[in-house]
Amino acid sequence: MALMKQLSKLGEFGLIARLKELVGEAPEGEVWVGDDTAIIRAPAGTILFTTDIMVEGVHFDLATSSPQDLGYKSVAVNASDIAAMGGTPRRAVCALGIRDGLGLDWVESLYAGMRQCADRFGFAVVGGDISKSDQVVVSVAMLGNPAGRLTIERKGARVGDVICVTGTLGASAAGLGALKAGLGGREDLIAAHLRPVPRVQETQVLRRFLPTSMIDVSDGLASDLSHICEASMVGARLVADDIPLADCAGLGLAESPLDLALQGGEDYELLFTIPADRAEPAIAAVGEETATLVSRIGRIMEPSAGMTIVIDGQERALVAHGWDHLSQ
Amino acid sequence: MALMKQLSKLGEFGLIARLKELVGEAPEGEVWVGDDTAIIRAPAGTILFTTDIMVEGVHFDLATSSPQDLGYKSVAVNASDIAAMGGTPRRAVCALGIRDGLGLDWVESLYAGMRQCADRFGFAVVGGDISKSDQVVVSVAMLGNPAGRLTIERKGARVGDVICVTGTLGASAAGLGALKAGLGGREDLIAAHLRPVPRVQETQVLRRFLPTSMIDVSDGLASDLSHICEASMVGARLVADDIPLADCAGLGLAESPLDLALQGGEDYELLFTIPADRAEPAIAAVGEETATLVSRIGRIMEPSAGMTIVIDGQERALVAHGWDHLSQ
Repeated sequence: MALMKQLSKLGEFGLIARLKELVGEAPEGEVWVGDDTAIIRAPAGTILFTTDIMVEGVHFDLATSSPQDLGYKSVAVNASDIAAMGGTPRRAVCALGIRDGLGLDWVESLYAGMRQCADRFGFAVVGGDISKSDQVVVSVAMLGNPAGRLTIERKGARVGDVICVTGTLGASAAGLGALKAGLGGREDLIAAHLRPVPRVQETQVLRRFLPTSMIDVSDGLASDLSHICEASMVGARLVADDIPLADCAGLGLAESPLDLALQGGEDYELLFTIPADRAEPAIAAVGEETATLVSRIGRIMEPSAGMTIVIDGQERALVAHGWDHLSQ
Repeated sequence: MALMKQLSKLGEFGLIARLKELVGEAPEGEVWVGDDTAIIRAPAGTILFTTDIMVEGVHFDLATSSPQDLGYKSVAVNASDIAAMGGTPRRAVCALGIRDGLGLDWVESLYAGMRQCADRFGFAVVGGDISKSDQVVVSVAMLGNPAGRLTIERKGARVGDVICVTGTLGASAAGLGALKAGLGGREDLIAAHLRPVPRVQETQVLRRFLPTSMIDVSDGLASDLSHICEASMVGARLVADDIPLADCAGLGLAESPLDLALQGGEDYELLFTIPADRAEPAIAAVGEETATLVSRIGRIMEPSAGMTIVIDGQERALVAHGWDHLSQ
């Protein structure tokens, strides 16, 4: 049965009852799905507030992304934005545009995927809205708490700071390539694309060491580093050999692993700058407490130096792609 | 020039600079547009959190809605949800899907429309996201503060309570009819459709009188009253002669003014229940402090009575339409 008919039959009350089950039980003092707005509790002070929209045919393809994956990723990318400010994701709402051909079970699976990510990283989806649309749209807005008044912005990088990144880069783009080519056997890369890991645990360790700037790698290392450089009014020099690259062996992709890391995007790793003397203890603490690798990949330079990358001993200009979802 | 090319040329940094101008200056301690998330300040306690999605061809038509109107309405409907909980709208984020053929000036006009509504009702749009899409999608999420811990939910209506509504009903549907028919001379009705007034001021007066339940009229009086009845497990009897109807004279619409009020929707008036002895002072206070008319339109009944409406002295069953945006 088509979704619109199913929902009509179920009624708003029936749908609310189903969604209440799917989002879980609200703690004392909160009311989630079911009224004009969700009611949530928050400590006084600073709140982080973000939104990310995912559009079918632009950000995902339902031929390769299950509704669970899509739900998972739609909240994971918002949680990653919260983590990139040094914060902890807490509450989210989800606005959906649903096209013909998708049933209520599809919507329920999407919510189940959001719930999986929410449970894993300690937040909750507390409300939403649904409309018809011609293509699937998943628009999530999320709130997070920083540690006290501390937020880590893009603008604090200083000349001499070490540039670091968590995990490996290029895995998401390689996974997308594997999906498009129908290649099996690299479920690790495909998972990196379909279910990225927001670095929620890592940021809670890192923030104790006061990174001077931070961003998540959503557009590609080159582009996201350029956001830090522009906001901080500094230059940067990367060392290609130090960049932790995803293992793309045997995939036969046209782009090199380095290109995927620099321009691929959607890795959702944390890219941050930190004074040299705090880099070592920060890297050690993240490794001990989360088992996540943190790599030193370059240095912040004078603004006149621009953005460069040392490849095979030669220093070259590093060009950031535009804002990929718009410039295509 | 096409939007995607303009944005690519402007770059994310250029776009951020434009949006910063459009959203206005953040107060001390807050950072709006320009980082991974917005940073906002909030008092401790209860927060209201909501989202509403508007999709081209479902909720609006760009042939009859300017980008300013669309921006205005997209935040107004969220502010109305906050008002319906007895709250004050504070901060919003906006995720946009933009199709080919719309330029940067169109996006700027949309933001200008959001700003007009935000300035009028005392909130701010503090961040957002933009993607390509095949049809325009405007997805807003909003935070609001209730008065202390007081929130007015759908579920508190009690047998004997008076049912009241602010303003007049049916104006938005009549305005949509006038727009579709190309009728001039009824700019009041057209404005009610394109730029609905969230009852932000009125709710701040009303909440002092502790309404037992409240909702905004978004789906039509019959449907929204049914949400209160279902959530409160009560029945209701309306009196048709007491319902404040929009003046639709001369429009030649197929539906009667009463039908437009009951089933039209998008009036964004406040529908609330209140014990009889508090109704009169509440109505008087709203009138004195905001000049907005509040009408008594019926009574909450035992659940076994169901939902009825007295028309010309005869009591009839009142049937709520389904959830219009999905059941069509």
